[in-house]
Amino acid sequence: MQSEDALIAQLRELIETQLPHARSLTPIGDDGAAWQPSRSHRSVVTTDACIEGVHFRRDTMSLEDAGWRSMASNLSDLAAMGARPVLATVALGIPPGARAQDAVQLYRGIVEVSRLHRCAIAGGDVTRAPVWTVCIAAVGEVRTTHLKGRAHARPGDVLALTGALGASRAGLHLADNVNVLSGSLREEALRAHRRPQPRVAEGRFLAASRNVHAMMDVSDGLSTDVARLCARSRCGALVEQVPVAPSAAAMAQARGEDAQSYALAGGEEYELLAAIDARAFPYLRARFQKRFGRPLLPIGHVREGSGVMVRKAAGEEVLPATGWDHLRE
Amino acid sequence: MQSEDALIAQLRELIETQLPHARSLTPIGDDGAAWQPSRSHRSVVTTDACIEGVHFRRDTMSLEDAGWRSMASNLSDLAAMGARPVLATVALGIPPGARAQDAVQLYRGIVEVSRLHRCAIAGGDVTRAPVWTVCIAAVGEVRTTHLKGRAHARPGDVLALTGALGASRAGLHLADNVNVLSGSLREEALRAHRRPQPRVAEGRFLAASRNVHAMMDVSDGLSTDVARLCARSRCGALVEQVPVAPSAAAMAQARGEDAQSYALAGGEEYELLAAIDARAFPYLRARFQKRFGRPLLPIGHVREGSGVMVRKAAGEEVLPATGWDHLRE
Repeated sequence: MQSEDALIAQLRELIETQLPHARSLTPIGDDGAAWQPSRSHRSVVTTDACIEGVHFRRDTMSLEDAGWRSMASNLSDLAAMGARPVLATVALGIPPGARAQDAVQLYRGIVEVSRLHRCAIAGGDVTRAPVWTVCIAAVGEVRTTHLKGRAHARPGDVLALTGALGASRAGLHLADNVNVLSGSLREEALRAHRRPQPRVAEGRFLAASRNVHAMMDVSDGLSTDVARLCARSRCGALVEQVPVAPSAAAMAQARGEDAQSYALAGGEEYELLAAIDARAFPYLRARFQKRFGRPLLPIGHVREGSGVMVRKAAGEEVLPATGWDHLRE
Repeated sequence: MQSEDALIAQLRELIETQLPHARSLTPIGDDGAAWQPSRSHRSVVTTDACIEGVHFRRDTMSLEDAGWRSMASNLSDLAAMGARPVLATVALGIPPGARAQDAVQLYRGIVEVSRLHRCAIAGGDVTRAPVWTVCIAAVGEVRTTHLKGRAHARPGDVLALTGALGASRAGLHLADNVNVLSGSLREEALRAHRRPQPRVAEGRFLAASRNVHAMMDVSDGLSTDVARLCARSRCGALVEQVPVAPSAAAMAQARGEDAQSYALAGGEEYELLAAIDARAFPYLRARFQKRFGRPLLPIGHVREGSGVMVRKAAGEEVLPATGWDHLRE
């Protein structure tokens, strides 16, 4: 590995040629990066770590994919707040034996998804680490009146998702079951696993409606994340249907597993979950379909009380939180 | 280790009882944290990772100290920009076998130094990791006219430090040479190693003067960091004297080493290096002394050309960059 200053110069070159600088962002090279926030907005900040062996395996994705995912998870958090990405910082831990070009490769993935969502890279930190370690903090802006969170879902609200779930887990299984899926299903699963799309435009669209009362991303699995939304909003929920991605359904069938569990426990996906005023839902769904060419998918309702139930043929059952717990070993 | 949600609740409790919330910061629990930046200021962001085995050893400091240091290095970066800390996010990686109380302990150090400098903790991320991994991103604010960086040092400027160097390295050696120092020297060295003070007030004071042209912290060692300042400002420098902390001088003598090398190569210290208009320097130094009860220490001058030289008895010599390179193995 070359020296820190030499690597940083290479990364800076990559960033500056690939990304438009967010407004008057100071050039990289100072102790911090400065920018001028806009006056009518709130700033939003989020952070997410992505660690080799915990969040990704080198045998199921390239370093470029890992970089993409690290940034995508932060952009998804901004999306869940209804915010427009402004800039991000990257703290990169590089393992023994890695080459400078490996670090550049990982940064390439970071830069690629940042460019799609017009997020500047405002510098960061490189250091040695036992394994590849990517800690990103992202800053966005949201009009004060559009700021959403998890706390204001109301009984009666429709719970809706910006897309079907489970494809990322199907993609992970492809590493071990290479011949299970083919064609577009295979594509869908691999893409969801390696290049998940943060729903930035969808988040801003939903945040602009005052009929959307709460929003979050379901990056830790739907069952866990619905429970978190309900706990924060001090209410309960009934899940009536769970939209499963076609590749997840096919993979579950091939492995003799329950397709719904792919969606409920999946994780590492970035669809948004929104609590939407029931009377406004049909109109908002129609506008969403027109704008994005995909449906806004209702999955159930918020209700009084606490706890998340799921509708089964035999009646309601408790929905256990089977999603991702980052401390489970 | 308990579940992620349970640990986060414990950490939130610690943060909310210990830290005043920065203005209208949203409570922790959403995908991100929102705040209202002030209108006349620029926002500044920085990030720094602190990794067990790379940045600290468990046998030379407690987890609380490690938490303090992780946050202090970020606050120091804000100080170098002349910024007032506003908030920080914390991504915490927890190794196998660690207990929840270990994570709380580490957070306690983070919270303690944050409180001293009125920095809110705006949430973060917890996850498993091979070793203790603390990635912090800190956001501050600086009046647009006060924003400093590394790029505008001018030939003729006095280079000055906010304090003497080398004590942190002396403190690190104490772990291996427990009986070398005693009394106040020992205190100084251990404190510098475990609880370094970011120079936030000093940074804001210096930033408010238009006679301070450039500023940075010397967290990677004076020789490396002077070279970085000069490279960014496209000029050279002559270092005429290097202020060595008393504990560093004593430790160097005890180990038969060169005392200056402790200051030049030390690292993990948070004094600020400023390039100050030579005519204004005496007045600024007097005001600094009056305000902080400590001297502003001149170490040399900026000059035309490139490269950093050091004055020796026999004449000028090249000052090699012997500071910390985060990628050196």
